[in-house]
Amino acid sequence: MDLAQVLHMNGDVEEASYANNSLIQREAISLATSSRVKAIKNLYCSLSPRSLAIADFGCSSGPNTLMVTSEFIKVVEKLCQELNHQSPEYKVFLNDLSGNDFNSIFKSLDTFKEKLRDEIETEIGPCYFFGVPGSFYGRIFPNQSLHLVHSSYSLHWLSKVPTGVDNNKGNIYLSNTTPSNVFKAYYEQFHLDFSLFLKCRAQELVEGGCMILILISEGSSYGWELLSKAIDDMVIQGIIEEEKLNTFNLPNYFPSPSEVKLEVETEGSFSINQMEVSEVNWHVPEPDMVESVVKTTKAILEPLLISHFGEGVTKEIFEHFRKILTSGISKERAKMINLTITLTKN
Amino acid sequence: MDLAQVLHMNGDVEEASYANNSLIQREAISLATSSRVKAIKNLYCSLSPRSLAIADFGCSSGPNTLMVTSEFIKVVEKLCQELNHQSPEYKVFLNDLSGNDFNSIFKSLDTFKEKLRDEIETEIGPCYFFGVPGSFYGRIFPNQSLHLVHSSYSLHWLSKVPTGVDNNKGNIYLSNTTPSNVFKAYYEQFHLDFSLFLKCRAQELVEGGCMILILISEGSSYGWELLSKAIDDMVIQGIIEEEKLNTFNLPNYFPSPSEVKLEVETEGSFSINQMEVSEVNWHVPEPDMVESVVKTTKAILEPLLISHFGEGVTKEIFEHFRKILTSGISKERAKMINLTITLTKN
Repeated sequence: MDLAQVLHMNGDVEEASYANNSLIQREAISLATSSRVKAIKNLYCSLSPRSLAIADFGCSSGPNTLMVTSEFIKVVEKLCQELNHQSPEYKVFLNDLSGNDFNSIFKSLDTFKEKLRDEIETEIGPCYFFGVPGSFYGRIFPNQSLHLVHSSYSLHWLSKVPTGVDNNKGNIYLSNTTPSNVFKAYYEQFHLDFSLFLKCRAQELVEGGCMILILISEGSSYGWELLSKAIDDMVIQGIIEEEKLNTFNLPNYFPSPSEVKLEVETEGSFSINQMEVSEVNWHVPEPDMVESVVKTTKAILEPLLISHFGEGVTKEIFEHFRKILTSGISKERAKMINLTITLTKN
Repeated sequence: MDLAQVLHMNGDVEEASYANNSLIQREAISLATSSRVKAIKNLYCSLSPRSLAIADFGCSSGPNTLMVTSEFIKVVEKLCQELNHQSPEYKVFLNDLSGNDFNSIFKSLDTFKEKLRDEIETEIGPCYFFGVPGSFYGRIFPNQSLHLVHSSYSLHWLSKVPTGVDNNKGNIYLSNTTPSNVFKAYYEQFHLDFSLFLKCRAQELVEGGCMILILISEGSSYGWELLSKAIDDMVIQGIIEEEKLNTFNLPNYFPSPSEVKLEVETEGSFSINQMEVSEVNWHVPEPDMVESVVKTTKAILEPLLISHFGEGVTKEIFEHFRKILTSGISKERAKMINLTITLTKN
């Protein structure tokens, strides 16, 4: 399976689209606002470029896609007013895998620009938008062409399912029954992918350029455990063959803050300015919590599950998942741990 | 009606998609090969940039989209070998209105790059691809960021239906029963749009940068006359209200070579290197000529016709159009006149 072909958030026209079901991601982005604003201010004050290039890696499509861009432009415009600078021009590059719904982003751009101009009120610098398809585990941009790199809720996607995880029986990700070689294989894949990401971005950023990364960090896999349980129940009921479950492993890794720190230091191109850990609890006291979690999970995993289990079985998996969520879950464990890290290119 | 929202070639998934029905456009592009190769060679030899930026305005989606890009890279790579230069890096910008099917272009990029590497055999410079949505009757790129601009079969689309054409009764475009004020209104709109295109591109191109434009030129409106007749027949039969036909005018203009020349000279940013007129006869002696013409016309006009006449009536319009084509048409008049013009920025 070529992951880059299969992996994409559900597109705009589907009921379970990512666009309609990405509230947790939105909250994670919001929580990192102060880190981001600080990083943008530092960047602008140290480089003051006349043409500012920002790239969002793994932009997806939906209301979150342009949220950070909007904030970025507002912060810079405000700074320019304070410093009595002329507004720079903005180049906004939106990257995701080629299966992403770029059409729906592009169709929303006119409205976005209109809204931005209304909100800022003073005249802003010219804004140019570009869609850039391709895996961020490889070069996507020319040398030294970017000032600011942003990536939220994307870097926990590995470039592929690690090799040598065949004995991760009854699991779809790392759990407390996962053998140690599987943990090692997942970590090794994260190491390869994340260091490659750092290396590529280091080539693409200008000296003094900045990266703001929001990653899902360790302690966030409870949802995957429940989904794993749903599939396991179906194995017990004879609906899914055991072999089919055993050969399915998610191409995710939720690194710990120290694992991320180690990679950055070993790779050597970047200095860490700030690391921040925050929590989003998804066991929220609202009547449709279950529906919301099912929809979010569908938006994220449906294409991947369908490619392995087929459409009918995937539909059933989500029904079992819904039942498990309804029957009561651990409020304590139902959370996403976010790691926000801001880096400057040496 | 906001034309930029409605106007797009039929997308990839439809039977009457532009991707499957753009043979005439392909032939027009092929006919201009020698002009293009000459222009690319001149450009490379005079500027020898280490990073080459090419933009295709009105790229659409389908087999023609990347044809010129492929040729461009091949010509430059061959030149580099001859001159013993290191390959430059390539930045390829694909522009069209935001309704264009960028998703299908992006999905085809990996195969395209693979094929290109196979065909060229020697190692080529790094290639970066960008989708750029927006009307080319306005700024889309930063100042002096492009080396080569290409546009084929796009500039005959006006930014809007001209105002003051209400008395163009019984016609959908300019014909021999069109009143002279309507001719003037169409020409005026072409003048405004084309001069704006030149002005914007002049700002976006580097000094010495090059433009290659393929336009549909005067003498190409026979197809629109036949389509007009199809709609008129339906008015006579009482299927379409006369008012509905009278208020529909195509946002096209097929300028004469001298009209194009005059605009370029008046605007003043570009020098004309070469102008070439070529013909594509679409009354080809093949059994499915009628089907092919109907499909091509559908691919181009269906979204626009549906937005004015509705889906059911548009379907019937194409049935009438098919009947007219089958009943025998003028072989002499069934042609597209193409104007290829290469320009250098002063």
